[in-house]
Amino acid sequence: MQQELSLILPDDFHIHLRQGRDLANYAKSAALQFGRVLAMPNTEPPINSPEAVKKYKEEILAAAPNLEVLLTFKLNKNYTEQELLDMKKNGAVAAKYYPLGVTTNSQDGISKIEDIYPTIELLEKLDLVLCLHGEEPEAFCLDREREFLKHLEKLCKTFPNLRIVLEHVSSADAVEFVKKLPQNVAATVTVHHLILTLNDIVGDSLCPQNFCKPLPKFPKDKAAVREAVFSGNKKFFLGTDSAPHSLEKKECLCGAAGVYSAPVAIPILIEEFENENKLNLLSDFVAGYGADFYKIPRQTKKATYAKEEWQIPKTIDGAVPLRAGQTLKWKAK
Amino acid sequence: MQQELSLILPDDFHIHLRQGRDLANYAKSAALQFGRVLAMPNTEPPINSPEAVKKYKEEILAAAPNLEVLLTFKLNKNYTEQELLDMKKNGAVAAKYYPLGVTTNSQDGISKIEDIYPTIELLEKLDLVLCLHGEEPEAFCLDREREFLKHLEKLCKTFPNLRIVLEHVSSADAVEFVKKLPQNVAATVTVHHLILTLNDIVGDSLCPQNFCKPLPKFPKDKAAVREAVFSGNKKFFLGTDSAPHSLEKKECLCGAAGVYSAPVAIPILIEEFENENKLNLLSDFVAGYGADFYKIPRQTKKATYAKEEWQIPKTIDGAVPLRAGQTLKWKAK
Repeated sequence: MQQELSLILPDDFHIHLRQGRDLANYAKSAALQFGRVLAMPNTEPPINSPEAVKKYKEEILAAAPNLEVLLTFKLNKNYTEQELLDMKKNGAVAAKYYPLGVTTNSQDGISKIEDIYPTIELLEKLDLVLCLHGEEPEAFCLDREREFLKHLEKLCKTFPNLRIVLEHVSSADAVEFVKKLPQNVAATVTVHHLILTLNDIVGDSLCPQNFCKPLPKFPKDKAAVREAVFSGNKKFFLGTDSAPHSLEKKECLCGAAGVYSAPVAIPILIEEFENENKLNLLSDFVAGYGADFYKIPRQTKKATYAKEEWQIPKTIDGAVPLRAGQTLKWKAK
Repeated sequence: MQQELSLILPDDFHIHLRQGRDLANYAKSAALQFGRVLAMPNTEPPINSPEAVKKYKEEILAAAPNLEVLLTFKLNKNYTEQELLDMKKNGAVAAKYYPLGVTTNSQDGISKIEDIYPTIELLEKLDLVLCLHGEEPEAFCLDREREFLKHLEKLCKTFPNLRIVLEHVSSADAVEFVKKLPQNVAATVTVHHLILTLNDIVGDSLCPQNFCKPLPKFPKDKAAVREAVFSGNKKFFLGTDSAPHSLEKKECLCGAAGVYSAPVAIPILIEEFENENKLNLLSDFVAGYGADFYKIPRQTKKATYAKEEWQIPKTIDGAVPLRAGQTLKWKAK
């Protein structure tokens, strides 16, 4: 008899759905895997007004009407309280901070986080979440996350009631730091930072599919991320940072940073949690702690997965997925 | 008046000239930069017989008759004393050791260096040089060179009179290790390990042009390599490890490891030595210490360079050169 697994339909608290022609495909793909997503705002132009938030939500829903869509807006300037209220009304639950030049479409990022403290103060007042791409751009690539922690510390002291998410946590230093901070500071964990190290990018031939920011780092860093997740620490929940790039952008000349994990994220996670004998913790990680942190109801709909081998295609929606060409043990039914 | 610099025509004690149709172009390009090269044997099939050594030398000379060609052969098996004598007669001055799977065409490498100790003993007896690709393949990518040092230490103890070159030294640990070993152990230094760190490969967008083995590492590692060179330590001499790959292999899909530096190596070095106020040490580094170590006469022919800006083409001989598209200050006349 085929083995099956039933889960609460997962949430993805960090996803890139892109825009234009691609958006429809990526949104539909995401809706096959997740019941609810938090869409990141680094489109061109960025999501940074009440109108843009509304329009982006409508575009996503037009492609994937059953997907519950939570929005973010980009902190590339200061906002008035009225603008923030209007963005909240239009579906935004969080503001996303990108340091200048740190990843895809962050050339309009902020060079000094203190410059937007007036807006961050309003986020705290209105109980909006602050999502951080926590890397210090000027530092050596493997030190950028650790070097950013001083900013996180200062934010926590200055805005003690602000809910903060350190996105895509990737280093042992940051994991330990988040653990020690109060409960209003959490971290998202991607699938790829649970399973990759720098070896998977530059250890053998160059592997552009696995290239992303923050970089997967040393084995000890991966171990720390895994320990946080497999110990069931509720400060660490799923945000895939699934970030599709076309085959051309990913592998020819451009070397764009980002891993397209949405279509394979949950099957990979089931396998990882199963290997760790922690399947009992999976549901909270993918559909519990994140909703609790965002103060939204946990979902009730279920998703079912079958233990059935399948090979990940070389491209999905024209983008190279994580573990392209490899075989997975679990499949969404 | 234009500034000029006259140097002894440089030696390159580590170069990949490839084979077949490409060889002629790469050999001609090399002859424009160097008076003498030590050609590496990782062709397919490899250079691993007296006949192969003779044929490879003839092929290189057919394309570049004025180039002085020194040969290596691949340590992918044990050799008889007669074979070694015949290879020496045909132009080989060194044997090259590749650990299994560590870089381009090393799938026939040795998994246990002790397996070829009988041949290494003969190298010592015949005063042939042992060139090491010093990386432990199983280790984490940034630790591979350091993890290899135990093998180097054992080789030195077992074969105290053997001349050994740790090729393309890339880590502070290995630099310090080589410094402390006797004078019969030296290291080649590439141009790219003098100027790159991991940041230049994965720090911003992925930069396949700079991807190579051993990986450029942390700033402290680059600093150690530079210190060894700019202090005029005679154990450290130029071997570019110039390794051309086609644009397609380098940037699309394959992600081949190797930096094509031969056409730009000397102009870059002049600039680097000039910036360090060490131009007086350049000639020994590029045309002195290596010849001394290999017990061959220093060259006497001169090469002249002019201080004249030029832009490095996007490809040279169909391969992407180091610093493609960037502007250099010095140019060979």
